Amino acid sequence: MRLMRVGEPGHESPVLAAPNGHYYDLSPLTADIDGAFLNRLLDDPSLVPAVPAQLPQTEIHGRRIGAPIARPSAVLCVGQNYAAHAAESGARPPEQPILFYKSPNTVVGPYDDVLIPRGSLRTDWEVELAVVIGRRASYLASPEEALAHVAGYAVTNDVSERSFQLDVSGGQWSKGKSCATFNPLGPVLVTADEVGDPQGLRLRSWVNGEPRQDSKTSDMIFSVARIVHHLSQYLVLEPGDLINTGTPEGVALSGRFPYLGAGDVMEMDISGLGRQRSELRPA
Amino acid sequence: MRLMRVGEPGHESPVLAAPNGHYYDLSPLTADIDGAFLNRLLDDPSLVPAVPAQLPQTEIHGRRIGAPIARPSAVLCVGQNYAAHAAESGARPPEQPILFYKSPNTVVGPYDDVLIPRGSLRTDWEVELAVVIGRRASYLASPEEALAHVAGYAVTNDVSERSFQLDVSGGQWSKGKSCATFNPLGPVLVTADEVGDPQGLRLRSWVNGEPRQDSKTSDMIFSVARIVHHLSQYLVLEPGDLINTGTPEGVALSGRFPYLGAGDVMEMDISGLGRQRSELRPA
Repeated sequence: MRLMRVGEPGHESPVLAAPNGHYYDLSPLTADIDGAFLNRLLDDPSLVPAVPAQLPQTEIHGRRIGAPIARPSAVLCVGQNYAAHAAESGARPPEQPILFYKSPNTVVGPYDDVLIPRGSLRTDWEVELAVVIGRRASYLASPEEALAHVAGYAVTNDVSERSFQLDVSGGQWSKGKSCATFNPLGPVLVTADEVGDPQGLRLRSWVNGEPRQDSKTSDMIFSVARIVHHLSQYLVLEPGDLINTGTPEGVALSGRFPYLGAGDVMEMDISGLGRQRSELRPA
Repeated sequence: MRLMRVGEPGHESPVLAAPNGHYYDLSPLTADIDGAFLNRLLDDPSLVPAVPAQLPQTEIHGRRIGAPIARPSAVLCVGQNYAAHAAESGARPPEQPILFYKSPNTVVGPYDDVLIPRGSLRTDWEVELAVVIGRRASYLASPEEALAHVAGYAVTNDVSERSFQLDVSGGQWSKGKSCATFNPLGPVLVTADEVGDPQGLRLRSWVNGEPRQDSKTSDMIFSVARIVHHLSQYLVLEPGDLINTGTPEGVALSGRFPYLGAGDVMEMDISGLGRQRSELRPA
């Protein structure tokens, strides 16, 4: 099942992108694609009928596409979860998942502009697999039961300002991760049942049409199941929470590519989850 | 003005603690003490009448006291903001505010139990001045205009598990800051007009009645005004957001005191903002 949110910022409507190529308004079922709805849907997938003829059809052409979930209560990020990216960042692969947060008000739609913060010299891209939690997770007994707590997956871009991240916050990364618009998400949330194995996906990014990142989620150091299990030993994951699972090699921090400037265009793509396109402009 | 939330978790009612010693139900004015209400109140302090005789009186004796604000959209923390605490942590005073986040679902009431996470050996206390934002702040022009964006102040305890914070997350602190119940807040939110200068407050903490921390907010390296101004250069602060402004010396990490165990009692006090009391028990 492919879920979207369509409309102006703060006024998005929930939409089903059906296999028949039509779009259906989910408003009769829920006001928003939020934690409560995702939790109900995970408990009862028949909540959204396979043949959605009972729902009103809707048109998305020409309308803004929002992030496919309501603002999360937390945006958790796993750092350096691909060995080659850890190496290009000058670090050794971590022995445990590295956790940091970014402010939930960074989440924007998949085609919204991304703002280069004032004073920025090193704004960078990071395509990542987004995991959206559908069921409360606390002290899970094993990684094997973790995926049952995942509502679905999406494309996420963990935009980063490297000086803010690395130079002006005593080594704590969040200051360079929480600038306005720094988390394009979507275009769709694909439910976990439709994705199947989250470790079999291809992630790619481009800047101005030139390839940057091209890796597979099978290259993750810590799989989605291990991340969810691990985090649940330290904190409580709630329905609607967003986890950015780390980026593969091919970012500007590597020194191989220039940082982003106004007018540049980022594209982020994950197989089966769609493609984002974000234009950079000054804050 | 002193604001409280009273009732069971998730079902708290907004309450005014009036200077006459009586308590008044704020439900006719707002469903909750959330960002929208705090923003309205900052714009129009007469929203809550000075003589609250129009409001229904209420009784709080024997009822649970919740955190004095609804769950924040973000909990921002400033690290090592007192020179003596930076020293006892083995660090030099920072040249810029250190920012990290904790999960907003850590916020609990001022008398709720605090859970020692499973596997914890080094659970620690941190009394701090909490700043609650009342007006959106982005790219503020100077520290001088920052305090106009503050709705009020409260006592906060930035509970920390030092091994989770320092040893198992590649140096990113949030894993040891986001455990369930790790942010007792309150008992009251005192509005900024009533507090006046936030740099003139005494912060103290005790464990099992023995003194631990005893410092003044005038010892902060970065004042509240500088913190709010600084953060607004990097991210957008929203009404209802919570900022923990850092802890002074006297925590267990210093080596001078034992870490917390089940049955221990923490008390946290800031002059004019009240006192918390939290008992530790196993998760």
